[in-house]
Amino acid sequence: MTLIIKIGGGEGISLSPILTELATLIRAEPALRVVLVHGGSHETNILSEKLGHPPRTITSPSGHTSRRTDRETLDIFTMVYCGRVNKSIVEHLQREGVNAVGLSGIDSAIWRGTRKSAIRAIEQGRTVIIRDDLSGTVDRVDADFLNLLLDTGRVPVLTPPAITDDGIAINVDADRAAARTAAALEADELLLLSNVPGVLRDPRDPGSLISRVDATTIESARAAAAGRMKNKVLAAEEAMQGIGGRPVPRVIIGSANGERPIASARAGAGTHFVGGALPAGVA
Amino acid sequence: MTLIIKIGGGEGISLSPILTELATLIRAEPALRVVLVHGGSHETNILSEKLGHPPRTITSPSGHTSRRTDRETLDIFTMVYCGRVNKSIVEHLQREGVNAVGLSGIDSAIWRGTRKSAIRAIEQGRTVIIRDDLSGTVDRVDADFLNLLLDTGRVPVLTPPAITDDGIAINVDADRAAARTAAALEADELLLLSNVPGVLRDPRDPGSLISRVDATTIESARAAAAGRMKNKVLAAEEAMQGIGGRPVPRVIIGSANGERPIASARAGAGTHFVGGALPAGVA
Repeated sequence: MTLIIKIGGGEGISLSPILTELATLIRAEPALRVVLVHGGSHETNILSEKLGHPPRTITSPSGHTSRRTDRETLDIFTMVYCGRVNKSIVEHLQREGVNAVGLSGIDSAIWRGTRKSAIRAIEQGRTVIIRDDLSGTVDRVDADFLNLLLDTGRVPVLTPPAITDDGIAINVDADRAAARTAAALEADELLLLSNVPGVLRDPRDPGSLISRVDATTIESARAAAAGRMKNKVLAAEEAMQGIGGRPVPRVIIGSANGERPIASARAGAGTHFVGGALPAGVA
Repeated sequence: MTLIIKIGGGEGISLSPILTELATLIRAEPALRVVLVHGGSHETNILSEKLGHPPRTITSPSGHTSRRTDRETLDIFTMVYCGRVNKSIVEHLQREGVNAVGLSGIDSAIWRGTRKSAIRAIEQGRTVIIRDDLSGTVDRVDADFLNLLLDTGRVPVLTPPAITDDGIAINVDADRAAARTAAALEADELLLLSNVPGVLRDPRDPGSLISRVDATTIESARAAAAGRMKNKVLAAEEAMQGIGGRPVPRVIIGSANGERPIASARAGAGTHFVGGALPAGVA
C-alpha cells in the first residue's frame, strides 16, 4: 500500500497534529509506504515581506494562480521550503520515531521539469508575457530513488523546487508534483490536504462541499474551483489519468486541520475523486 | 577510494570554482566515492542581521568559538545551511552532471548527536553557564545510508544541524561532523577547505604555514591554532584517531579558493596531517 500525502503551506494550517497522526499511522502499519509532499507559501510570503521583497501572484488567462518567481524570490522560497519547513517536518517525524528524509525536487533530480519560457498573465485586465520567471512543471519523477528510500523503511519528505534538464531550479506547483509522484510510484491513494475542506461550489460556504467527483461530474468540479483550488483539481485529474505512471485509483482533496485529518479524509471527508481516468479537461 | 571534502561557509569563499573542479574530478573518476560537507556561517550572519537577530559568538574557557544558537538562530541557520547554501550547491553539481543529493544531519538521522546541557563561556572576562543553547556534537553517523547513496552513484551533500536521540535539532561544528563522517565511512582522505591557507603559526602571516603535522609536532599545531582554526585542528585530530570508525590516513587543512583548490591540497598545499593516530590532546 503506497500513500502520497500533500500538506499545503497556506495560512492557518497547523502541522503538528497531522504529523503526529501520520507518525502514529506509520508506526502502526510499518509496511505502509508513505511519501509526504509539502508546500510553504504562507511562510514564504512572511519572509519575503520581512526581506523587503513582497510576494507577487501571476494569474493566467484561464484563472490559474502562481507565484511570480524571480531569482530573489526563488532564493527566499528555497530557504523556507527546503530549509525551515522541510527540516521542521523531518525533525517532528524523527522525534516521533519515523525515519524521515527531507529532500527537494532538485536532490537526485527527483523532480525533472520544464521551465516555462513565456507565461501569459493577466495584469490589470491586460494580457502580458513574462519571460524571466523561474517556474515550470514536473515531467518526470525519479521513482527508483524514492523506492530505494521506501524499500529501506524511510519516509521521503519532498518539496519544490524541481530541476530542469540543464540544471536550473524551478518553482513548481506542489499539488501537481505530488500527483506526478503518486502516478510514478503507482500509489494507491493521493491525499491533497490544505486549509480548505475540499472543492466547494461556493468558496465562502463550507456547506457547499462537492463530496464526490467522477467522470460525469468533473466539469462541475472544474467550474466550481477558483484560485489555488484550480491547481488542486487539475492535480487530482492528472493523478487519476496516471500521467508518467499508473492512474491513481483514489484521490482526495480535503482538510489538513482537525484532530485526525488523514483518517477523516480516508473515511469520507473532503472531495473524493473516483472511477479511473477522467475525460481530458481544458487546463 | 573515498574522499570527504568539507567546504567552509566563511566570508570570502567562492563556491563556483571548487564545485566545478569537484564535478570535473567526479566525471573523470566515476568510481571515486565523494561526500561533500559544507557550512554557511557567513550567509547566516548576513540573514541574521537582516532579520534583526544579530549573530553572537560563544568563546569557551579554552578558546574554542561557536555560534550562540537559540531557537530563532537555529531557524535562520536551518534556512541558510539546509535551504539556500545546500540547494545552491546541489543545483550547481546537478548542472555539471553530478547526481548530488542534499541532506542535513537530521535527515535519516545521519548525524546523531548530544546536546550540550551546559556550556561554559567567557563573557567580558567572566565565566558564565549557558543552559538553553541548541548545540552539541555528533556521536554517530548513519554510514549505511550514506553508503546506500554512494553505492548507487550519488554524491551526498551534507550540512548541519544534527539530531539528538530524543529528536531535537542541534547546531554542530561542520568540521568535526565531517571528521566523524570520514571515520565512519572509513575514508581515505579528509579535506577541510576554507578561507585560510592552512594552520598558520601567525594568523596574520600566510607565510607562517605549518605544512606538515605528525605526532611530534601536533602540540605546536594546537598551540598555533586560534579561533575557528582550533575546531579544524581538533577535527583533524579526531579524524586521525578514527573515532566511531577507522583512522583517516590523510587529513588536509587548506584553502577552498584558487583555481583548483582540491588538486592543490592533494598535491601538497595547506597543512597535511600524517602518521596515523596522534596522542590525545586537551580539547
